[in-house]
Amino acid sequence: MLKPLGDRVVIRVLEQEEKTASGIFLPDTAKEKPSQGEVVAVGPGKVQDDGKRVALDVKVGDKIIFSKYAGTEVKFEGTKYLIVSERDILAII
Amino acid sequence: MLKPLGDRVVIRVLEQEEKTASGIFLPDTAKEKPSQGEVVAVGPGKVQDDGKRVALDVKVGDKIIFSKYAGTEVKFEGTKYLIVSERDILAII
Amino acid sequence: MLKPLGDRVVIRVLEQEEKTASGIFLPDTAKEKPSQGEVVAVGPGKVQDDGKRVALDVKVGDKIIFSKYAGTEVKFEGTKYLIVSERDILAII
Amino acid sequence: MLKPLGDRVVIRVLEQEEKTASGIFLPDTAKEKPSQGEVVAVGPGKVQDDGKRVALDVKVGDKIIFSKYAGTEVKFEGTKYLIVSERDILAII
Amino acid sequence: MLKPLGDRVVIRVLEQEEKTASGIFLPDTAKEKPSQGEVVAVGPGKVQDDGKRVALDVKVGDKIIFSKYAGTEVKFEGTKYLIVSERDILAII
Amino acid sequence: MLKPLGDRVVIRVLEQEEKTASGIFLPDTAKEKPSQGEVVAVGPGKVQDDGKRVALDVKVGDKIIFSKYAGTEVKFEGTKYLIVSERDILAII
Amino acid sequence: MLKPLGDRVVIRVLEQEEKTASGIFLPDTAKEKPSQGEVVAVGPGKVQDDGKRVALDVKVGDKIIFSKYAGTEVKFEGTKYLIVSERDILAII
Repeated sequence: MLKPLGDRVVIRVLEQEEKTASGIFLPDTAKEKPSQGEVVAVGPGKVQDDGKRVALDVKVGDKIIFSKYAGTEVKFEGTKYLIVSERDILAII
Repeated sequence: MLKPLGDRVVIRVLEQEEKTASGIFLPDTAKEKPSQGEVVAVGPGKVQDDGKRVALDVKVGDKIIFSKYAGTEVKFEGTKYLIVSERDILAII
Repeated sequence: MLKPLGDRVVIRVLEQEEKTASGIFLPDTAKEKPSQGEVVAVGPGKVQDDGKRVALDVKVGDKIIFSKYAGTEVKFEGTKYLIVSERDILAII
Repeated sequence: MLKPLGDRVVIRVLEQEEKTASGIFLPDTAKEKPSQGEVVAVGPGKVQDDGKRVALDVKVGDKIIFSKYAGTEVKFEGTKYLIVSERDILAII
Repeated sequence: MLKPLGDRVVIRVLEQEEKTASGIFLPDTAKEKPSQGEVVAVGPGKVQDDGKRVALDVKVGDKIIFSKYAGTEVKFEGTKYLIVSERDILAII
Repeated sequence: MLKPLGDRVVIRVLEQEEKTASGIFLPDTAKEKPSQGEVVAVGPGKVQDDGKRVALDVKVGDKIIFSKYAGTEVKFEGTKYLIVSERDILAII
Repeated sequence: MLKPLGDRVVIRVLEQEEKTASGIFLPDTAKEKPSQGEVVAVGPGKVQDDGKRVALDVKVGDKIIFSKYAGTEVKFEGTKYLIVSERDILAII
C-alpha cells in the first residue's frame, strides 16, 4: 500500500452517487466546491521546530471533505487515490 | 454533523432578512462587504510550535460577521454551510 | 454591540468636518492618504507563539489615524463602522 | 500631537533647501532616491515573540534619511508629516 | 557517488514499464501527475533552529512517488538521476 | 557622517579604474554583475528574537563585493555613497 | 582571496571537458540543468535565532553540483568564480 510522508494523507475519492448517500449536496455557485473522500492511509505527521512530530487529526476510515483543487492523483492496483496535505482537509463528516 | 479540523469553523449563513433583524445593514460602497452567520461547529484549534492547541475564540451559537469571500460552501442534509478559518471571522455580534 | 476578534478594532469613521475640527488636513498628493476614526471596541489581542495574548495599544475612545484602504465596512444600528486590524492603525491623535 | 503606534515614527519632511544645508545631494540616476526628515515622534516599539518591546534606535530630533516611497502623509496643525516604519529609515545624519 | 546536501535525496527515476510492474497507473486527467523512483542517496537532513538535524524519513532502496515537476536532473556514470528535496516526495510505495 | 541603522552599511562605491587595481574583472555575460566598494560606516546590527543584536561581519575599511542592484544612493559632502543591507554584501576581498 | 559572508561559497566553475572527466553528463531535456564546480572558499555560516552560527556542510576542495541559475559571477586575478549560497548547492560528487 502507499505510505504517505509527513502530514500527507491518501484519500479514496468518493464519486457523486456516494456523496448523495452520505448527505452532502454541492450548491450551484461560483464558490470553491469541496470534494469528498475516505482516508485510506495517513502520514506520521510533520516534524516541528522542537524535533517532535504532530500526529494527524484524521485517521483511516474517516469520511472527509477536502478542497477540490488540492493534491496529486495516483492510480494504485486499479483504484484512484489522491494524496493531499492534511491542511487541505476541511472537515470530517 | 460536520467536524471541522484545526482552526476551522462551520457557519450557517444568515440570509438578508435575518441580517436586518439582527441590526446590521451593509452600506453601498466599493469596500469589502462582510457576511453574517451563526457558528454551528468549531474545530479543536491549531497546533502551535510548542505542540499545544489554541482553543478558538468563537463558540457554537455565536452570531458572527465574516469576510464575504472566505471559505468553502457545502450543503449538508439540505442546509447550506460555509467552512471558514477563524481568522476570517471579523467580530461577534 | 460588535466584539472584534484577535487584534481587530471597531472604528467609527470620522467625517471630513470632524477631521478639520481635530486639526488634520490631508494634502493633495499621490501618496496614500490616511483616514481618521474613533475606537469603539477592541479585540482581546492575538495569541502569540507562547500561548499568551498581546493586549492592544489602542483603547475605546482613542482618536486614531488609519490606512485609508484598510478594513471591512459594516453598518450596525444605523452607524457606519470599520473593522480593522491594529497594525493598520498608524497613530493616536 | 501624533503618537505613532508600534515601530512607527512621525517625520517632518525636510525641503530641498534644507537638504543642501545639511550636506546631502541626491545624484541624477535611476536608483531609488532617499528623502530627509527630522524625527518628531517615535512609537513605543514592536512587541516581540517573548512579549517584550524593542525600543526604537531613532529619537526625537534626529535628522534621518528614509526611503522616498515609504510612509503615509498627514497634515497636522498646518505642518506636513510622514508616518513611516523604522525599518524604512536608512541612516541618521 | 553523489552525496546530497541538507534534506535532498538522489532518486533513480523509474521508467514506465517499471511503474506498471509496481502497480501504479497514472490516470488521464489534468491533475498533477506524480512520478516514481528509487532512492539511491539521502542527505544528512536540514539543520533546525535549535542547531540539530532532522533525519530524513526515506532511506536508500525505498520506492517512492514524487512530484513530477520537482528536482534537478543529472546523469552520473551513465545513469539518469534526479535530486529532489524530501518535501517533494509524496509517499513510499 | 552617516550612521546607518540596523544591519545597514554605508559604502563608498569604487569606480572601474579602482576595480582593475584590486584585481577584479567583471565578465561579459548575462549573469548578475557585482559591484565593489569600501565600507565607510556600519550599523549596530539587527535586533533578534531574543532581544540581542547581531554585530555585522564587515567593518570600516573592508573592500567588498556587493550585488549591483542593491541599496540606496546618497551624495554626502560631495562623495557618492550607497546604503545597503549587509545581506547584499557577497564577499570581502 | 575572496572571503564570502554568511552561508555563501566561492566556486570555481568547471568547464565541460572537466565535467566529462568527473563522470557527469547533462541530459537533453527541458529540466533545470545543474552545473559543476570546485569550492575554493566558504563563509563562516549564517547566524541563527539563538545567536550561534551553523557551519557549512561543504569544505574547500569539494567538487559540487549547483543550480545553474544561482549566484553572482566575478573574475578575480584572471579566474572566473561564482559566489552562491550553500542552499543552491545540490550535492557533493
